[in-house]
Amino acid sequence: MMKNLDSFFFPKTVAVIGASEQKESVGRAVFENFLLGGLKNKTFPVNPNHTRVLGKKSYKSVKEIPRQIDLALIVVPAKFVPQVLLECTQKKVKAVIIISAGFSEIGEKTLTQEVAQIIGQNPGTRVVGPNCFGVLCTKNNMNTTFSAAAKTGMPKKGTVAFLSQSGALGVAILDWMSTQEFGLSKFVSYGNAMDIDEADLLEYFSSDPDTKIITAYIEGVKEGKKFMQIAKKTSLKKPIVVLKGGVHEETHKATASHTGSLAGRNEVYESVFAQTGIVQAQNLQELFTFAKILENEPLPKGNRVQIITNGGGFGIVSADQVLSKGLALAKIDSKIKKELRAAFPQTVTISNPLDLVGDADEKRYSLAIKKALQDKNVDIIMVLILFNTPAIDTNIVQELKKIKKTAKKPILVLSIGSSYTAKRKKELEKANIITFSYPNVAARALKGLVDYAEFRKKHN
Amino acid sequence: MMKNLDSFFFPKTVAVIGASEQKESVGRAVFENFLLGGLKNKTFPVNPNHTRVLGKKSYKSVKEIPRQIDLALIVVPAKFVPQVLLECTQKKVKAVIIISAGFSEIGEKTLTQEVAQIIGQNPGTRVVGPNCFGVLCTKNNMNTTFSAAAKTGMPKKGTVAFLSQSGALGVAILDWMSTQEFGLSKFVSYGNAMDIDEADLLEYFSSDPDTKIITAYIEGVKEGKKFMQIAKKTSLKKPIVVLKGGVHEETHKATASHTGSLAGRNEVYESVFAQTGIVQAQNLQELFTFAKILENEPLPKGNRVQIITNGGGFGIVSADQVLSKGLALAKIDSKIKKELRAAFPQTVTISNPLDLVGDADEKRYSLAIKKALQDKNVDIIMVLILFNTPAIDTNIVQELKKIKKTAKKPILVLSIGSSYTAKRKKELEKANIITFSYPNVAARALKGLVDYAEFRKKHN
Repeated sequence: MMKNLDSFFFPKTVAVIGASEQKESVGRAVFENFLLGGLKNKTFPVNPNHTRVLGKKSYKSVKEIPRQIDLALIVVPAKFVPQVLLECTQKKVKAVIIISAGFSEIGEKTLTQEVAQIIGQNPGTRVVGPNCFGVLCTKNNMNTTFSAAAKTGMPKKGTVAFLSQSGALGVAILDWMSTQEFGLSKFVSYGNAMDIDEADLLEYFSSDPDTKIITAYIEGVKEGKKFMQIAKKTSLKKPIVVLKGGVHEETHKATASHTGSLAGRNEVYESVFAQTGIVQAQNLQELFTFAKILENEPLPKGNRVQIITNGGGFGIVSADQVLSKGLALAKIDSKIKKELRAAFPQTVTISNPLDLVGDADEKRYSLAIKKALQDKNVDIIMVLILFNTPAIDTNIVQELKKIKKTAKKPILVLSIGSSYTAKRKKELEKANIITFSYPNVAARALKGLVDYAEFRKKHN
Repeated sequence: MMKNLDSFFFPKTVAVIGASEQKESVGRAVFENFLLGGLKNKTFPVNPNHTRVLGKKSYKSVKEIPRQIDLALIVVPAKFVPQVLLECTQKKVKAVIIISAGFSEIGEKTLTQEVAQIIGQNPGTRVVGPNCFGVLCTKNNMNTTFSAAAKTGMPKKGTVAFLSQSGALGVAILDWMSTQEFGLSKFVSYGNAMDIDEADLLEYFSSDPDTKIITAYIEGVKEGKKFMQIAKKTSLKKPIVVLKGGVHEETHKATASHTGSLAGRNEVYESVFAQTGIVQAQNLQELFTFAKILENEPLPKGNRVQIITNGGGFGIVSADQVLSKGLALAKIDSKIKKELRAAFPQTVTISNPLDLVGDADEKRYSLAIKKALQDKNVDIIMVLILFNTPAIDTNIVQELKKIKKTAKKPILVLSIGSSYTAKRKKELEKANIITFSYPNVAARALKGLVDYAEFRKKHN
């Protein structure tokens, strides 16, 4: 049965166990964060050493709070965690996030055992952590990750969920995500995953109406069978992109001292990902580019890419990347070829890349793209634009916007340049046309999209 | 004997053959460009149909100009090129750039033959092109590439030379280069290479005191043997980075209609590059990152990388990339291990990645980096910094600056994040510390550096 995790994201009442006035302490950062938000009057500090914390009445124990508590955040030293967690279960707190570290990730056994026992005996209280940063939900600005606002950007509201076994990397990724065009639905840093693990989170996001695509940084899967079942079911509904940390013998040892995960061999993971339709990002960069393309583009019918360009060399290096990444160059349908030949000047090479040459304007592009949309031999359209040429101006942006509205095939735009080019690309991104600078990055992103489309086609 | 190409970059007098007043014409753009520069009184328009062009006395033929001409730019239609080129040789013009297209790249034979003959009979006149954008030299702001300033950024003065068989891609790359930290010495778009080819340019840049590293976009090499001899000799003096366009069977056909080059099989090129010490960029992105790292870093003694981080997960994904790209993780010397163990809190993992953990400040980083510089088991230092953590501030930038001044090993910094992180990275870049966002990109750049260092070690 699916675990109900709503109280982690939409609590009506919150207790901060270990709330503190001490400067630069996590207990203060977390508590302050809530005092600035919509739950400020429904957040209760728990700290037996103080009667008030930052002006709020402080409770000796969560049990003393005269309200039902939906979510408790635990930020006390590890040795106190079993006791306060036990009190949370007695209080029937629905969701607990143990931010505190000092458990299996440092080889600690006794406390880990005690926490495990409490979790096992109290399924009414769900636990995220320990050794984690907690959650972030953009819908209601719920945020337990206590990162300094001056140093960390917040992703905009969006449809990409992100779950991370690593806390610090997770927050850095959120920060970086704030510079991207796509937005975040929910984030969970789940650390040692003693109760809620990556599979539970996949399952929850699978039926989360605010989430269209799930991204994850995972060092090791907790329960293989459960993960596979849930991942496969989820992949058939929405894409999952996973960056696996510790793919080499040497690095996978390091994951043990990081989140205490017992990572299996890489080959096993690769096979699990392939079987369950998970799109594996080979690196951090792909985690973003896969999210970007899967979030925005329709699923292509195949892997045949038509390149349309106003620069011959740019077309060639892009075609090289399309082929290097395991995609194919489309062969233009012969009837369409004739139509293009009749419509374009002789300098235009009707081939793939379709080189519209340096004096191409938006009309030439428009016709080429529309014909590629009609062409049954074309699955994906890659539009390369060198904005430095005199014939290209903002009209091309308007033209692409119009085309994109009804396009049933993935269309992406590639361009390199400085500020003028960046401005045009920004306009395209605003109109939901994704853009890339480098052909190798775009082609890998397309491969992710094609792989996922193939999985869906095969299993649906 | 090396061809003297000085007149292409440092002409004292220039003729623009085909200078025009017609709006948006190349003849106007090129001529106007010179009227705005330091050579405005030493640039002469040649156009038999006008007595004046943009206020300047126009000559019917280059031969009529009452001055010795160092450089002539030809921007007339292809059919007139043989005649005006012949006149240039009669005038003993030292350097000619034929910007006009319409020769072998479109399968044209007669005109191509005529031009070839004139070039062959007049070695006193060197020719770049046809079908090219010409040259750019940052030292004296000499620029024949006629791209609209409003749309195209200009690279800053620097030590990276760039030669490109493709004109439009070359200019787009220049534009993109203007956003990078490294600067340009000279650029040549050499097109069909009927006289001056890529090997001549390598040879010239090889002894150019303003050039520290040579980058190139090449679709096909003109003369294999000559290229190999010059490339190998040059590589022993300074690094050459080449992006080869048309590496697949299908794309390499496309290069024929682009710059008319007879590209050989890819395996042949790969072997030539390996033998001559050329660092082959696999894509456009690497052309930049290889330039960036080779321009800035000392050559490492080997491929053993020490990772120093304040984020465990970031360390693991970076170590994965180091190993994936064919580099090795350094094993910290046992004596240094003990020293680090004694100096650092127990939470710090003394390993590789060396995880200084979330509360690491600049002092912890400084000690770790200094020890890695001492460590004979370490060739390269990769410093990962998550700037979101409270203990990290601008002090780390100051500390790294100091260390970098005397460091004999490559040191690079990786960080992902938004505006706060970007600001810190900018400060580092200003202090000649190169930074990256993505571990995969950094690791590939390092591999380029290591490969080049190995070539130098083997052949010097």
